[in-house]
Amino acid sequence: MADAPMNRQILLVSRPEREASTANFRLVETPLAPLKDGELRVRNHYLSLDPYMRGRPYERRQVVRRAAAAQRSDDRRGTVGEVVESKNASYKVGDNVVGMLGWQDFGTSDGKGLIKVDTAHVPLSAYLGAVGMPGVTAWYGLNRIIAPKAGETVAVSAASGAVGSVVGQLAKAAGCRAIGLAGGEEKCRYVVETLGFDACGDYKAGRLRDDLKAAAPNGIDGYFENVGGDVLNAVLARMNAFGRIALCGLISGYDGAMLPIDAPRIFLNQRLLLQGFIVSEHMEVWPQALKELGERVATNKLHFRESVAQGLWKMHTKRFSACCAGKTSASNW
Amino acid sequence: MADAPMNRQILLVSRPEREASTANFRLVETPLAPLKDGELRVRNHYLSLDPYMRGRPYERRQVVRRAAAAQRSDDRRGTVGEVVESKNASYKVGDNVVGMLGWQDFGTSDGKGLIKVDTAHVPLSAYLGAVGMPGVTAWYGLNRIIAPKAGETVAVSAASGAVGSVVGQLAKAAGCRAIGLAGGEEKCRYVVETLGFDACGDYKAGRLRDDLKAAAPNGIDGYFENVGGDVLNAVLARMNAFGRIALCGLISGYDGAMLPIDAPRIFLNQRLLLQGFIVSEHMEVWPQALKELGERVATNKLHFRESVAQGLWKMHTKRFSACCAGKTSASNW
Repeated sequence: MADAPMNRQILLVSRPEREASTANFRLVETPLAPLKDGELRVRNHYLSLDPYMRGRPYERRQVVRRAAAAQRSDDRRGTVGEVVESKNASYKVGDNVVGMLGWQDFGTSDGKGLIKVDTAHVPLSAYLGAVGMPGVTAWYGLNRIIAPKAGETVAVSAASGAVGSVVGQLAKAAGCRAIGLAGGEEKCRYVVETLGFDACGDYKAGRLRDDLKAAAPNGIDGYFENVGGDVLNAVLARMNAFGRIALCGLISGYDGAMLPIDAPRIFLNQRLLLQGFIVSEHMEVWPQALKELGERVATNKLHFRESVAQGLWKMHTKRFSACCAGKTSASNW
Repeated sequence: MADAPMNRQILLVSRPEREASTANFRLVETPLAPLKDGELRVRNHYLSLDPYMRGRPYERRQVVRRAAAAQRSDDRRGTVGEVVESKNASYKVGDNVVGMLGWQDFGTSDGKGLIKVDTAHVPLSAYLGAVGMPGVTAWYGLNRIIAPKAGETVAVSAASGAVGSVVGQLAKAAGCRAIGLAGGEEKCRYVVETLGFDACGDYKAGRLRDDLKAAAPNGIDGYFENVGGDVLNAVLARMNAFGRIALCGLISGYDGAMLPIDAPRIFLNQRLLLQGFIVSEHMEVWPQALKELGERVATNKLHFRESVAQGLWKMHTKRFSACCAGKTSASNW
């Protein structure tokens, strides 16, 4: 009998207290068990590295048990790959699938939670971005919480990121004025010139309140929040009556900062709605959202960019907290 | 021709910068003009004095024009009274009406915005309280924002007040655990013993977080906020996933305090909804709400208490900011 094939996995072995570091992870190699009836094996081609992962280890009180971790990586990390072996009648070798198979070469699954995807019109990696969890996150917050009407002004922070870039482009397509907020001149230029937002405020330039006033002369009706802190406080001051805020992330606090809301009276005076959400709790919208997003990508109506690191260990040794900078990264190997 | 009858009015003549004082008001006597066709005249019997009024002068940027003010009092202050003269076919002398006729002896109206009320089963003054704006405020925030399910825990601040007392009693009637928050031992005793709440936390006792933990062992699903500041921060820390917060008032900040929300990350982690509202913008619910509230009062299923000052000038000379203490007051003369 030949040696069992080996599987490389990145395991989360401790919970970061403040900044995450490589010390919180370990790269292990374990032999793959033979498939049981009903199972299939996927060779992962792209693994997601998204900001939400940073919050997870300590905010959700996720207990990492070393014993269990030695057997499997965190299976809530998004992946796309190709079926290489199957004892499941619904999947055949060569099928491309998106799932949550974790940071490892091979994922083993009974098929539950996997979605077969078409790569003829949409590149495989996009299923981890604009046509994946980040895209659906944008779609849900915009359509189900902000629910913008044509002519309204919609703002989004981390606007150059995987989620924010989709929010603004969908808002434009809905007939809204789209205002981006991003960190740095280069990101702002990308947001306006490539993504087609109407304006972008650079929150590193130190004049955000003035920039917002100029960018949104009629105030802001909908706000998609990824950042929190000073950015949220500046936007709140410009919200119009009956404004809606979709709270998707508070990136600026992922390393433990408190990020107070300075003057919550605005919620009362302007009768604002704030709704925190996690897209994985709204699976009912995924088919519709993915269909719309896929059509937009296939017809070049939705632009996106990716940061791809080649090789599993490269992703590992990148400073993990880079995933908090508002970019989607993926590892390809 | 006899002298024209005189009308006493309390006018708001300046906007309070911080605490309101009698210097912001003036008592004037002006002759009443004869009724025109279609008009009616109401002798006001009770005038409302509610916390929302404190916010209004400076938060809404309401411009008080001295010239206009000399002719009429603020017509957005609730009143109940009796028709004493009518040139309007829909109203006859002796009808009891609730409206927004302002702090004055006599209100003159074309009938718009007035509602005829039955005083056989509900006392007239209650139409300014449990069966009036404060009651409908409670009804709206509870039913349309919190939308509690039986078995859930609902908390309300300023729980002994005109709004809070109704919120908790309606929550109990809906099969919920009702937790009050009130300032002082006496108010808390009233909330539990008379109003029938399950528990009450005294926010003047300095152990609110511990008290909340004991009062809401399964966390809080719905919160009706009247106060803000430390109270809101303490409740937020106890909110359950998918909790709903109806933001009705921020009494503790009416004199200018900022009241930051210390740790807004809870909105994301627990996927909370926060909705600010003003009940006068939801007139569509008033008929249903008033019907339900009236039936509850008439059948002794809804308890309330009133603070009534006799005489218009007495209300005036009471320290105006007393209206921020969470009680409904009314003036009867």
